Amino acid sequence: MANIENINVNPELPLSSRLKRFKAYGAPVVDVELKMNTNENPYQLPEEVKTEILAALALELPDLNRYPDRLQGELRIEIAKYLSKITQVPINSNQAWAANGSNEILNQILLAFYDPGVKAMGFTPSYSMHQILSEQNGYQYVNIERRSDFSIDLALALDKIQSEKPRIIFIASPNNPTGNVTKQYELVEILKIAKNSIVIFDEAYGEFSSEPSAVNLIAQYPQLIVTRTMSKAFAFAGARVGYAIAQAETLAALGLVRLPYHLSTQTQVLAKVALRNFEVLQMQVQQIIKDRKFMQQALENMGLSVIPSDANFFLFGRFKSSQKAFEALLNVSILVRDVGIDGFLRATVPTTAGAHLFIKELGALLDNREIELS
Amino acid sequence: MANIENINVNPELPLSSRLKRFKAYGAPVVDVELKMNTNENPYQLPEEVKTEILAALALELPDLNRYPDRLQGELRIEIAKYLSKITQVPINSNQAWAANGSNEILNQILLAFYDPGVKAMGFTPSYSMHQILSEQNGYQYVNIERRSDFSIDLALALDKIQSEKPRIIFIASPNNPTGNVTKQYELVEILKIAKNSIVIFDEAYGEFSSEPSAVNLIAQYPQLIVTRTMSKAFAFAGARVGYAIAQAETLAALGLVRLPYHLSTQTQVLAKVALRNFEVLQMQVQQIIKDRKFMQQALENMGLSVIPSDANFFLFGRFKSSQKAFEALLNVSILVRDVGIDGFLRATVPTTAGAHLFIKELGALLDNREIELS
Repeated sequence: MANIENINVNPELPLSSRLKRFKAYGAPVVDVELKMNTNENPYQLPEEVKTEILAALALELPDLNRYPDRLQGELRIEIAKYLSKITQVPINSNQAWAANGSNEILNQILLAFYDPGVKAMGFTPSYSMHQILSEQNGYQYVNIERRSDFSIDLALALDKIQSEKPRIIFIASPNNPTGNVTKQYELVEILKIAKNSIVIFDEAYGEFSSEPSAVNLIAQYPQLIVTRTMSKAFAFAGARVGYAIAQAETLAALGLVRLPYHLSTQTQVLAKVALRNFEVLQMQVQQIIKDRKFMQQALENMGLSVIPSDANFFLFGRFKSSQKAFEALLNVSILVRDVGIDGFLRATVPTTAGAHLFIKELGALLDNREIELS
Repeated sequence: MANIENINVNPELPLSSRLKRFKAYGAPVVDVELKMNTNENPYQLPEEVKTEILAALALELPDLNRYPDRLQGELRIEIAKYLSKITQVPINSNQAWAANGSNEILNQILLAFYDPGVKAMGFTPSYSMHQILSEQNGYQYVNIERRSDFSIDLALALDKIQSEKPRIIFIASPNNPTGNVTKQYELVEILKIAKNSIVIFDEAYGEFSSEPSAVNLIAQYPQLIVTRTMSKAFAFAGARVGYAIAQAETLAALGLVRLPYHLSTQTQVLAKVALRNFEVLQMQVQQIIKDRKFMQQALENMGLSVIPSDANFFLFGRFKSSQKAFEALLNVSILVRDVGIDGFLRATVPTTAGAHLFIKELGALLDNREIELS
């Protein structure tokens, strides 16, 4: 069906020259039995959380005619409490700032620190929105290749930061789509050199990792902004809540460019309830980590390679053709993601039942030679 | 209390030079008996709408772990249906596009049509976010003074459009803070000249006006984008839903820069329910229009001037000192807005009871000479 994503812009209109080569970003929407393509949490919100959400929203609906709390005061308190608890790092609410998904946080940062001619830097392969948002906001994007194990080549990174002088540096850890982390000592080395940059440490998948969060570094480094999301660990992709942790005097820059009342009353309500229930939601996270390990072992037993992952997804292969493997899986109603890494596909960890189904179906496709390994 | 809006940005950070003179935008938050400062609808959502919202959301919560409908398909159908009905202009869902408040729509337009060196144009006094968002997005903003009756000087406008060649033209109608409309023949004259501009016709207060919507012009003018909001007419300021009406090949430009999944599941649910219930919400609109007329008459009877308004607010004066009048009202717990127009203040139409209270309190302040007219 024609829609805003596949209709061409009227060529008579003065479309930004930055956008001439862009297409609307987003994974293909396909109805399948096993959706393992967008790193969603496969579990529903627990019943008690759903019930509490409806009760909390009922209390707020009488005020929906009024603008929301522009300062999201209660929400920032809940974020600070939650993170202090899981990281053991004391964080106060002025060091927390939420928006409609971490993408809106990234956009606010890009807008707040933009000047003509500035560069942004990332370590490829990584989350593609870092580059897309940077370029749409006028940054020249410098891509530094990761090593073959997808780690950051620290010497090269430090060198490039000094020569390219990026205004913004993006580091995703755990990195999407590869699943590996950047160690804290590596981040510290980068922060020591990147004194005139804003360093965005994107911990969207932080809860699935055994590596400590970088929030313990914000006290020392004003240029560090740790971004996180409730989409994955809180089974909240539909609710669109991302947040940033940084010094208050750093987040104040985001306050200058945030749209007035950017975060709706209902979104603040939902997020507060979920954060208060983080312990029950953490159980889902533990299950997903367990199933990721189980799947890795099972796939390796079947002769596949799995890139060790600290996230709720992993890269697996090595296929003769990732495209053919993708299509063979889709034929049995399993949707994974072809992220353009030769011989590999990315799979989101599904429910435990889904994990077993995936292994069974993949095994059959290998047995039938509908999927071939290289 | 220290918060992100009153903490200074760390001067060591590379804040955008565009932002050096900006402060965070937003009306002061004061707890008062009669809040008449931000043009909110003073009425709660009707009970049946609140009940329907909770029921509809309960059905969607099981899928909250999944990303929302990126294309907001059902919501755009509801918007198109609603507008077709109230305007009698056939609009299809590909001509509608929603975001988190009309400010996000404006931001998407500014980003989609930006190029270095471009200008945006507005007619002052008008909605201050037009200029703020334009400048934050790198546009040079050209302000054309309205005439003393706050109408647009059409000859001057056409002249300036030809000489300044603005990439974006903002026209708010009804205009905030003055309440008057731009007539459709005036808009057409502007569209005929502004062939290389994007013309944003901001109808945030459209439902309170007797002037027909400009949506009947989109078929003919690809550069016209009509923006509207649910904040006012739908008693939905807290829900943050704005939308744009334009040709599909124009809205496609917004699709290139929208953040992936920018509109949450819960926001889509709330908006769909409210739109389906527009008839009951229209009754509030009718009451507000009635009370606006009543207040205008009452204020004029008390010797004040009221600028004729097609919105849910009006300018009133003429005060010897608008600042003193503002403070005198605040002393009796009535909060209006000083919008910087000499001798005038802006008041949002409150509930019917609030309107009577306002008139009584204002009358007393005039009698006591705590407020003096010029």
